[in-house]
Amino acid sequence: MKFLTTLIGIVLAGNLLAQNWQLQSPQKKLALEVTLSPDGRPSYQLQFKGKPVITSGALGLQTQDDGGFDQNLAFVSADNSSVNNSWEPVWGEEKSIRNQYNELALRFAQKDGRKLQILLRFRLFDHGLGFRYEFPGQPNLQYFILKDEMTSFGLAGDHTAWWIPGDYDTNEYFYSVNRLSEVDAIAKGNATEISTRKVWSRKGVQTPLMMKTAEGLYINIHEAALVDYPAMQLEIDGSSLRSHLVPDAVGNKAYLKAPFHTPWRVVNVSDKATEILASRVILNLNEPNKIANPSFIKPQKMVGVWWEMHVGKSTWDYAGTQNASTTGVEAKPSGKHGATTANVKRYIDFAAQHGIEGVLVEGWNVGWEDWFGKWKEEVFDFVTPYPDFDVKELQRYAASKHVKIIMHHETSGSAINYERQMDTAFRFMKNHGYDAVKTGYVGRIVPRGEWHDGQWMINHYNRQIKKAALYNIMVDAHEPVRPTGLHRTWPNWLASEAARGNEFNAWSVGNPPAHETILPFTRLMGGPMDYTPGIFEIKMSSYDPNKKEQVHTTLAKQLALYVTMYSPLQMAADLPENYEKHMDAFEFIRQVAVDWDSTAYLEAEPGAYLSIARKAKGKSDWFIGAITNENGRTAKLTLDFLPAGKTYEAVIYQDGKDAHWEKNPKSYMISRQKVTSKSTLAVALAPGGGAAIHIR
Amino acid sequence: MKFLTTLIGIVLAGNLLAQNWQLQSPQKKLALEVTLSPDGRPSYQLQFKGKPVITSGALGLQTQDDGGFDQNLAFVSADNSSVNNSWEPVWGEEKSIRNQYNELALRFAQKDGRKLQILLRFRLFDHGLGFRYEFPGQPNLQYFILKDEMTSFGLAGDHTAWWIPGDYDTNEYFYSVNRLSEVDAIAKGNATEISTRKVWSRKGVQTPLMMKTAEGLYINIHEAALVDYPAMQLEIDGSSLRSHLVPDAVGNKAYLKAPFHTPWRVVNVSDKATEILASRVILNLNEPNKIANPSFIKPQKMVGVWWEMHVGKSTWDYAGTQNASTTGVEAKPSGKHGATTANVKRYIDFAAQHGIEGVLVEGWNVGWEDWFGKWKEEVFDFVTPYPDFDVKELQRYAASKHVKIIMHHETSGSAINYERQMDTAFRFMKNHGYDAVKTGYVGRIVPRGEWHDGQWMINHYNRQIKKAALYNIMVDAHEPVRPTGLHRTWPNWLASEAARGNEFNAWSVGNPPAHETILPFTRLMGGPMDYTPGIFEIKMSSYDPNKKEQVHTTLAKQLALYVTMYSPLQMAADLPENYEKHMDAFEFIRQVAVDWDSTAYLEAEPGAYLSIARKAKGKSDWFIGAITNENGRTAKLTLDFLPAGKTYEAVIYQDGKDAHWEKNPKSYMISRQKVTSKSTLAVALAPGGGAAIHIR
Repeated sequence: MKFLTTLIGIVLAGNLLAQNWQLQSPQKKLALEVTLSPDGRPSYQLQFKGKPVITSGALGLQTQDDGGFDQNLAFVSADNSSVNNSWEPVWGEEKSIRNQYNELALRFAQKDGRKLQILLRFRLFDHGLGFRYEFPGQPNLQYFILKDEMTSFGLAGDHTAWWIPGDYDTNEYFYSVNRLSEVDAIAKGNATEISTRKVWSRKGVQTPLMMKTAEGLYINIHEAALVDYPAMQLEIDGSSLRSHLVPDAVGNKAYLKAPFHTPWRVVNVSDKATEILASRVILNLNEPNKIANPSFIKPQKMVGVWWEMHVGKSTWDYAGTQNASTTGVEAKPSGKHGATTANVKRYIDFAAQHGIEGVLVEGWNVGWEDWFGKWKEEVFDFVTPYPDFDVKELQRYAASKHVKIIMHHETSGSAINYERQMDTAFRFMKNHGYDAVKTGYVGRIVPRGEWHDGQWMINHYNRQIKKAALYNIMVDAHEPVRPTGLHRTWPNWLASEAARGNEFNAWSVGNPPAHETILPFTRLMGGPMDYTPGIFEIKMSSYDPNKKEQVHTTLAKQLALYVTMYSPLQMAADLPENYEKHMDAFEFIRQVAVDWDSTAYLEAEPGAYLSIARKAKGKSDWFIGAITNENGRTAKLTLDFLPAGKTYEAVIYQDGKDAHWEKNPKSYMISRQKVTSKSTLAVALAPGGGAAIHIR
Repeated sequence: MKFLTTLIGIVLAGNLLAQNWQLQSPQKKLALEVTLSPDGRPSYQLQFKGKPVITSGALGLQTQDDGGFDQNLAFVSADNSSVNNSWEPVWGEEKSIRNQYNELALRFAQKDGRKLQILLRFRLFDHGLGFRYEFPGQPNLQYFILKDEMTSFGLAGDHTAWWIPGDYDTNEYFYSVNRLSEVDAIAKGNATEISTRKVWSRKGVQTPLMMKTAEGLYINIHEAALVDYPAMQLEIDGSSLRSHLVPDAVGNKAYLKAPFHTPWRVVNVSDKATEILASRVILNLNEPNKIANPSFIKPQKMVGVWWEMHVGKSTWDYAGTQNASTTGVEAKPSGKHGATTANVKRYIDFAAQHGIEGVLVEGWNVGWEDWFGKWKEEVFDFVTPYPDFDVKELQRYAASKHVKIIMHHETSGSAINYERQMDTAFRFMKNHGYDAVKTGYVGRIVPRGEWHDGQWMINHYNRQIKKAALYNIMVDAHEPVRPTGLHRTWPNWLASEAARGNEFNAWSVGNPPAHETILPFTRLMGGPMDYTPGIFEIKMSSYDPNKKEQVHTTLAKQLALYVTMYSPLQMAADLPENYEKHMDAFEFIRQVAVDWDSTAYLEAEPGAYLSIARKAKGKSDWFIGAITNENGRTAKLTLDFLPAGKTYEAVIYQDGKDAHWEKNPKSYMISRQKVTSKSTLAVALAPGGGAAIHIR
């Protein structure tokens, strides 16, 4: 095929011969070169428009009993192919997704011993590279144990990075921004507001890792389709990033069986930050939807008996003690329990009144007196409600209001306890009208010795999502591994938390105003986040005068997040009584869509600002979100994404003139104006502020 | 109470004060002294008829975050009590069991810090001591992590021991006999015929540990009621045995929550070997039966599609390859698959013809091509039969013959995979007429890093037995931890393997002729064993002329084992066609009972010989088994256990005059004679031989 320029070259390396292969992306923006050194070590280089992205990266794997796959390899064969098609996700940021790449598949064999074969598959898109290791079925290789993956990413400079510490157990840090050489993960990993942490190196960071070169190139490293393998984190080693796989309880990395392929290692590159956000490389590298009849999957908004526990108005547990000594029959209700039948009905009423489909209820099942922090194996049973939560009555009431209650399965990290009971728990859900479940993994993992991001837990998350699909159940996973695009394959996986959500603002140092301008470049590269925006009562002092915590936001910015923070599951996280004080602003939450025909990334800079426009699926409405960090700015929004020749009304929800995230966060104003595809809006954003626009 | 001589003494220890307490057994055979040293270390001594049994043993536990419970303790209180009653087991060696002991409960508190309390409870029977640690409920102690148990057993000499290597994963060794100082567990632990081994010290041994002093005292150390705690093994440290708990994946010993008590540490003592066998101390220390309606529990005999795989006549797997490369749809039947509908019917017919209740079938479910040795997590699904095993037809056929098929659940060590599917597996059993299951744990444990004998697996076995009880299912567990009398509490736990069974004779160096004379003093102290006796075709050369393996027995000895090797579940392990050649000898297996009114231990010496008589439950028939080691001998059987004044017919199955386990194992003869309670039978046992007698 003429656009492929792959060739097998033979060059001199010292006095010996090296072999190399080249591949270009469809529009020739990216160029890849793979080399097999004279001693049989594979490596690769990547350039974007002639500029080095990866100067040199190691390739290969080390196994326990089967020799290495990182050196002493011999070339067997090379295959090229190309793909240019499109596909439609069940839900997403776009109705149709273009999938265009050129592929190189290199087969190598060990020179000695059993001469086992490994295949390296590279897919080069115009804004990204994906590659993975494959072990073809072969007579001498069945089960094998992975000791280490040797992949590295050699960089051309000491780039600026937006990073969180490498950690086997959590991704709930806020981001730091500095040069790679200045990363100190141990210092940053001492975040005591995160209960379960395991930082593994001073130079360890997590993916998605967002970087920017001195020349203005944006480079993002992550992985796609994480299945049956540990998560990849990165260790900074001079100018190189080395893959670091999360180990298991005994220090192995993975238990594999040929035929097998690893997840894709993904490098997204562009000289425009907006093109990083627009990249669909990770989705394209995932397998197509495996759910034959996805009609049960419904993007939606929800309210929930949840934020009121975070702000201290009520408690998850019945006894109100979070104290193991009150467990058992003697547990007395404290009067502060949140998940009571009456309180849930209040949320159901609010949801029904405002067209919100779901009501999340946490703290409904017994065990919350004694669930946390003890590395306990047998925690919740997922089927036994507290005496003040009437499952049957709430089933009847919610159905009468055409609202769905969303189940909550907190595992306390004891995934093994959840797996034992999963069938029973899902049957209980289906018998009581629940179609969606929010899971939780707060705490150290049981089986003890395993980590949130190790192979065992990766398999757990995937096992759970598959079983949920069998029961026609949607999932919102909290405290799991960060996503890698698997929602393409399992679209019942609506969202994950897997990062530092809005909740941290209620009871800790919280999330700096820049946080939400970084997340789309990091955590969201892999998939939707249940960030729980929409907090109107921003300062915790309104609940308790002694509290100093607050959401680091203006009210208008909370509205903007419904657009900038993509998810098919969006929570209106604040309390009904808080929304009722600001129904004009709440109108944006009522109106905003959760599924989209198309998305335009108007302007973006990680850590600074972000403006995104999205067209509601099957409608002519557009919604824009624009946010900034702690600095005020004017968002310049060019509306050329609108169809030419039509006039729309834009309803603009923006910061008040005196708004400021800290000094005056609740100041907002709402205006209307006519707009066309030729309009440009200049919208002032307060420090820590934002704007939300409904174009109709 | 007047028979208690407990006192609190204060004696001089150096210049400081020590405190001590004394306790005697009901008949004053055993005397215990507990001491709290001036620095707050508890210890104990035990004497039998004035002879030292335990010269001094340490007491106490070390925890992770709660200070120690092995030193710096202060006396709080002492309580005495005594018990003398009896109880009836659901099944057993006796219809009624006497439970008589004096008890001392000492409460100590930490001198410093949180002043946490621990209680040491001692129960002194006439032939044994039990003691355990208890953590009462207390405000400052809820969850805690056990780092180590300090219990030790100081001995008065370098005793002779019948021992197997301390091993976290297996107890399938044959026994060695030598002085404690000569134990070399690493040398003996290199038993390559056992697939999964983890010897942890050169001086480590397992319990039950049988010892004999130079003065002829028999001492047996084990534990009772092993629940929510790791198994205790022993490390020889000079003249002391130190408890060594099996660790978990991260090196901790146990995760506990107060109130809690450990299993009982048990020392059985007597100057008569037969009284060690007759001891009911371990059963008495277990909790009473927890199954409200045990009518589903039926002691029984079984045949099975099982030995034919061991001798190579057929295979567990359909493809006959045990090769992962043949898994999947392409698996072709080899023609040697054992668990076919037709073959199972043959066993059902044989069972029905001879009044045998159960037919075990192994290899019935898909997955046997790829089940072994790969530390694989997802192995069997327990509900999918091979295409040549017709579940419905066999359910119908077995019911028509009034025979029950016994389910087989091989986990391959992946207990986690079993737990996920246990409800589904048990429902499948009940839907298809199965009342009993044989489990298997061949292989390294998953969750990886856990061991067969660690707390996690102990909890697994107990979880499994409880869930089985909920489904009215009986259990025969293979490759579990060795039993500790829990069959009193859960009488659906009919038997365990948990030692080196007869099967090793089919394909390894096998079990020396002394093996079965040692097992009752070791493994069987904790509970029944599914040893699978009854092999008539003793030499494997009858299946394959090239084979040199054989069962180390005479045919008559195989019959004797049905009496000497107590179990309510006894297999007639050989093939129907082999029994059909010796139906006169098979008559003993047909007749022998599996549940008993009473038992008389006629003569015994570990490693040498053993003669036991038992009265069939609810009948006037008695059965005697007499066996010897590799040396021939004459068993002198005094029948004074028979009711006086009645004349019985004794049918004597004994070795032929020229019988010899190696040279002529199949030689046997059957004779009849009249006997009364005044009779004494002198029965010649061949080298490696035995005799079985039916008195009616």
